[in-house]
Amino acid sequence: MSIEQLIRSAAADRRILSLGGALPAPELFPRKELADAFHRAMRDPACHALQYDWPEGQGRLRRWVAERLQRRGAEVTEADVIITADAQQALALTVQLLLKPGARIETESETYSSALDLFRRRSLGSVPFGTKGDLVYLVDGITNPHGRPPDPAHRTQLAESEKPFLVDEAYAELAFNGELPQPLLATARNRVWHVGTLSKTLSPGLRVGWLVPPRAMRSRVIDLKQATDLQTATLGQCVAENFLERDDFDARLARTRKFYARRADALVDELRRRLPSWRFQEPLGGFSLFVETDRSGDEQQWLRTAIAHGVSFDPGSLFCAGRGSRPLTMRLCFCACSPSRLAEAVRRLARAWHSHLRALPASK
Amino acid sequence: MSIEQLIRSAAADRRILSLGGALPAPELFPRKELADAFHRAMRDPACHALQYDWPEGQGRLRRWVAERLQRRGAEVTEADVIITADAQQALALTVQLLLKPGARIETESETYSSALDLFRRRSLGSVPFGTKGDLVYLVDGITNPHGRPPDPAHRTQLAESEKPFLVDEAYAELAFNGELPQPLLATARNRVWHVGTLSKTLSPGLRVGWLVPPRAMRSRVIDLKQATDLQTATLGQCVAENFLERDDFDARLARTRKFYARRADALVDELRRRLPSWRFQEPLGGFSLFVETDRSGDEQQWLRTAIAHGVSFDPGSLFCAGRGSRPLTMRLCFCACSPSRLAEAVRRLARAWHSHLRALPASK
Repeated sequence: MSIEQLIRSAAADRRILSLGGALPAPELFPRKELADAFHRAMRDPACHALQYDWPEGQGRLRRWVAERLQRRGAEVTEADVIITADAQQALALTVQLLLKPGARIETESETYSSALDLFRRRSLGSVPFGTKGDLVYLVDGITNPHGRPPDPAHRTQLAESEKPFLVDEAYAELAFNGELPQPLLATARNRVWHVGTLSKTLSPGLRVGWLVPPRAMRSRVIDLKQATDLQTATLGQCVAENFLERDDFDARLARTRKFYARRADALVDELRRRLPSWRFQEPLGGFSLFVETDRSGDEQQWLRTAIAHGVSFDPGSLFCAGRGSRPLTMRLCFCACSPSRLAEAVRRLARAWHSHLRALPASK
Repeated sequence: MSIEQLIRSAAADRRILSLGGALPAPELFPRKELADAFHRAMRDPACHALQYDWPEGQGRLRRWVAERLQRRGAEVTEADVIITADAQQALALTVQLLLKPGARIETESETYSSALDLFRRRSLGSVPFGTKGDLVYLVDGITNPHGRPPDPAHRTQLAESEKPFLVDEAYAELAFNGELPQPLLATARNRVWHVGTLSKTLSPGLRVGWLVPPRAMRSRVIDLKQATDLQTATLGQCVAENFLERDDFDARLARTRKFYARRADALVDELRRRLPSWRFQEPLGGFSLFVETDRSGDEQQWLRTAIAHGVSFDPGSLFCAGRGSRPLTMRLCFCACSPSRLAEAVRRLARAWHSHLRALPASK
């Protein structure tokens, strides 16, 4: 079985605790409020929620995005915002417009796995920050998989270069201390392609993300969006905008950060206690942390062993831009498990790890 | 103003009657039943509707699609169906996987405008049926813009060629006589890429379409879908599957066909009475008919004149694969206007046409 098949079969087995996937905690989904928002959308006599829409998306939702960016100092209007089928499509549209196969993208050494996957599929190379890339991809605010702010030098590089920056703020609003950096959009409006999403803070099932491209590129993005899928689902957009107009979203974010910070603490404590040889930096936000072990070896074999012990995770190689050889690494997500389930998951992980070590040849 | 800007500004003006856009009639949206389906989705304790999903989409919905194709004689299982962000994404994924820029697609001389737009954007040429194309694109069952079955010779060509066929059944279930051809998928399972959608029969706001690729290509489609947008919105899929499991969809289709057939009749009668010089074939299904006039001229000027008279339409050039010069043509949609509004729209169209003719130089 491939790594993907292993992950899928583990996900289908309820006995296996998952530290992978970065799924938001379903306890936080405001089901009743979203159902109310859906009902309000259905009462609209023109019933826009069920009808076709223009490729750039619904105006109220775009205004909501623009106003939040304005408050953070960026010069963005409703017309600048294009609603996309979540952050992933915003990334895909950007690289499709800007880069030809063979071009190179500067990324952090570990970064969002589906961005790396997209880059590879489009025959785009990943190179380190500050080298000869044609575009810079930066997960800003809080990174994935580390759950920490990016290296500050990577942000300041924007002012020093002339390159386009693709800035992905998927997790930025989930910094546990509530501090959001000024968006890089405010520094270089005509070179930054800003990406955001409701997937981590509200619900990924809506598939509502957005792209704010440089103004000169707006109409080209809209044309490409139209050829790609005509428009983002009106239903999700209408539910989101009806929900957001009655929600205190900042208060929701504050509760959400507190909720995930407690889970992050629980995972950190358990790992330090039961797997003290594993190295990681304490997460300061987001959904996950990134573990580096002191062993190299067969990642797939290690995942198989873990699953046999009733726990799964995201293999570290999925997040590695693939420069140089590495010890075994993992992304461990604290988002979707309660503290007690996290404790049980780490117990299983520790048993699995010791079993894995025993099975290794004596030389290493 | 470009044609697109003209169409947009007309759509924003409530005084202008639109015979363009091919929007389903909102009267047919089952708003209450969809709201009930949403509620059932929200009661699911795991609340899948708000969570991430695998790239191929929800199982119950894929089973529903597979069973309907099986009943029509195609060998399709749930695993063969990939839920896409509507038919447009299914087309985009297919040409992205199969064709390199510069390749050629065989199309009918008039066909679905957004498919032509997609092909142009990917630098794919359109060539006539039965010539040296690398892939054949066929809108089967009922074509767009003509609202009629395709040339039967275009269907039988499948058996005679070795080429991949991209078969778009967007309107097939809306043949007014209720007759669905056997899907071409049943003739050449390993060469047909079958595309369907709920947009015309239920609601485009859900953005639920599907692609059934040849089995050997399934995993490549899923990988590309994942890189493109991870997955189709779970919300729309869950609402659709909760709705469909309680709906008599065939009875709904029968009512829907009757509803649109009445509107088609009204448009045909009005055109014959007020614009007898316009040629068109009577629509036998779908949302529109295609008019050919006996005048050539500036299409944009003609659209501007029509809008000044309070009516808009889709200029015919949007649907033309662009081979050879043409007289002025139009797609006229009967789907979204009541018979009385259709009568008023055609009255305005006739006044606009006569005004347009008077403004032409005397030589023509």
